[in-house]
Amino acid sequence: MKPERLAAFTDGVIAIIITIMVLELPTPHGTDLTALKPVLPLLGAYLLAFINVGIYWSNHHHMLQAAKKVDGRVLWANNAMLFVLSLVPFLIRWMGEEGIHPLPVALYGVVLVLAAIGYVLLERALIAVEGEGSKLKAAVGSRRKEWVSVSGYLLGAALAFISPWISVALYVAVTSLWFVPDSRIERQAKGRGEL
Amino acid sequence: MKPERLAAFTDGVIAIIITIMVLELPTPHGTDLTALKPVLPLLGAYLLAFINVGIYWSNHHHMLQAAKKVDGRVLWANNAMLFVLSLVPFLIRWMGEEGIHPLPVALYGVVLVLAAIGYVLLERALIAVEGEGSKLKAAVGSRRKEWVSVSGYLLGAALAFISPWISVALYVAVTSLWFVPDSRIERQAKGRGEL
Amino acid sequence: MKPERLAAFTDGVIAIIITIMVLELPTPHGTDLTALKPVLPLLGAYLLAFINVGIYWSNHHHMLQAAKKVDGRVLWANNAMLFVLSLVPFLIRWMGEEGIHPLPVALYGVVLVLAAIGYVLLERALIAVEGEGSKLKAAVGSRRKEWVSVSGYLLGAALAFISPWISVALYVAVTSLWFVPDSRIERQAKGRGEL
Amino acid sequence: MKPERLAAFTDGVIAIIITIMVLELPTPHGTDLTALKPVLPLLGAYLLAFINVGIYWSNHHHMLQAAKKVDGRVLWANNAMLFVLSLVPFLIRWMGEEGIHPLPVALYGVVLVLAAIGYVLLERALIAVEGEGSKLKAAVGSRRKEWVSVSGYLLGAALAFISPWISVALYVAVTSLWFVPDSRIERQAKGRGEL
Repeated sequence: MKPERLAAFTDGVIAIIITIMVLELPTPHGTDLTALKPVLPLLGAYLLAFINVGIYWSNHHHMLQAAKKVDGRVLWANNAMLFVLSLVPFLIRWMGEEGIHPLPVALYGVVLVLAAIGYVLLERALIAVEGEGSKLKAAVGSRRKEWVSVSGYLLGAALAFISPWISVALYVAVTSLWFVPDSRIERQAKGRGEL
Repeated sequence: MKPERLAAFTDGVIAIIITIMVLELPTPHGTDLTALKPVLPLLGAYLLAFINVGIYWSNHHHMLQAAKKVDGRVLWANNAMLFVLSLVPFLIRWMGEEGIHPLPVALYGVVLVLAAIGYVLLERALIAVEGEGSKLKAAVGSRRKEWVSVSGYLLGAALAFISPWISVALYVAVTSLWFVPDSRIERQAKGRGEL
Repeated sequence: MKPERLAAFTDGVIAIIITIMVLELPTPHGTDLTALKPVLPLLGAYLLAFINVGIYWSNHHHMLQAAKKVDGRVLWANNAMLFVLSLVPFLIRWMGEEGIHPLPVALYGVVLVLAAIGYVLLERALIAVEGEGSKLKAAVGSRRKEWVSVSGYLLGAALAFISPWISVALYVAVTSLWFVPDSRIERQAKGRGEL
Repeated sequence: MKPERLAAFTDGVIAIIITIMVLELPTPHGTDLTALKPVLPLLGAYLLAFINVGIYWSNHHHMLQAAKKVDGRVLWANNAMLFVLSLVPFLIRWMGEEGIHPLPVALYGVVLVLAAIGYVLLERALIAVEGEGSKLKAAVGSRRKEWVSVSGYLLGAALAFISPWISVALYVAVTSLWFVPDSRIERQAKGRGEL
């Protein structure tokens, strides 16, 4: 089984996840700035979620490019990651409509942890199918970034019950860690003259 | 006609079917666990449907990979399967909003039977277009899994009028049969050294 | 410019058009057959529209396969066809919610005429970009099917103001004309030993 | 990193943006022309937005065709453009529901400016990744069209507070500038015998 169709399906699902959130933005009741004001937090949440899901897409793009073949395990690790990511619009809508409160903010952290777990599972499944000489395995290295992310999201989820704004700050910080695609893969490939 | 564009169109439709269900999840009214509770059954139903449709995608992916060409009959068998699968979000929303009751649960079984029939029709159409020496035909073998599935879904649909929970258990059991992509195709191909 | 990305974009738009209609199906209020009954006409309309749009996709698939390159005119003829097709879910929803009445049924005919015009414009634009020796031009032949379709849809639109049910019957009849992909293209290609 | 998957993802997002607007069209309450009348301005707005987003897709298609590789900067310039374009359906819905008023019409101009900026950023990122000998850079030339567009949108946004109808006229005029794909790229390529 080749990774191309998996990539295409993932592109489709992520494109939908990233775009349907605009359907959730409520129409302002009126046509002045006062009417627009209550929509602004939802717009901010949409921007954050757009970036978050966009980062997963970008890293997924990178990872699959280093992959040569996929099997059933890869496919279901991928589906698990997509399912979890599809909950992002739901949580963003909840926060947008009800405001920044502990439970939805904590659950956003939990969902980001689950998406990170799905991503790591997908990475492992891809390495497993390629076997010992896996180029991806050599490229991944220490998985330090993954552990920092998961810890940050979990901490954010816990701290939400003290103040949800601390969590939001933490989510943004951890998110920014992923903004640049995993340079280890590119460096590895460059070292071998493959990219 | 080549199977690539059929695969791409199917990916698009299934990606939408699998993702729009998240639009159906109602926003919790409030921000504590009590507000989240009524959404949980709908979330469970979404997860089940995500897996169900994901299985069809995975098996479709597998089947089309063994195919070399498609014709009008293949295309319409595929469209019939997609139409039936597109009713899954509708039924899941119905069950999520009105609860687990006999009629919607029975209809879910009927829709799964129809999707299985669509899948078998698609398989036959693909074999027909490839003719006698079809690799896919040699690979399919006894169709035992298909018959067990259809029987399980039909039984589930009938038993829903006694207790819908028996049906849910049956659907989950039959679904799990399809979780692993059809190993006969892979085995066959391996025996011939083609995969 | 190559036709592949045009095909991919068209697949995406048509996959969405064909699938979002299921979002329009209202949730039955209740869980018995009485509750399901008012949804049935909308389900019938969804099936008709799914087939109608599916036919355009199938013929589009066929036409683009015979094409070698596209230009700006092809692209905008294609967009015009997609815009018109995107009105189908709107009309189906209108008919589903308000019932089978003259105006929406007549407009459905008008939209089908406009989609047919868009299709013919696309065909001409594709032939124009390929120039005199166009394989597609040789394959198209008399355009009889196109003229019969447009006449049938226009007649249906006019007769809707006498009885919308005559129009529905006509739409179904004209639709069935397009069910089989344009055999002239396949015959032509076979005659030249190209397919 | 190759531009193909970026193109596919962009196609998916734009196909969704362009199509979900039809979900926003309200169902007419009644089945005569009087019932249809209040939907007509929304339909006009949908057509304008369909063309606007379609132009971005068409130009994007053109630009990426001249590109050989993409990096993280290209990817995020692309995502920024997609995010801004995804606000178009939101503004169109606002104008459709609340009517043609200064603030939403001005914001439509601002969104079009931001999308133009995103487009130029994407163009620069693509040229940067290709380096000095970039074919795209040689093709772009004076960027006169970009500056005229941005000026027109900004002027439209400002004039909306005098009369929103002047702005609508300006938007249509500036939009028409982009209707034809950037002929400089095609001319350049033809001059070199590459297209």
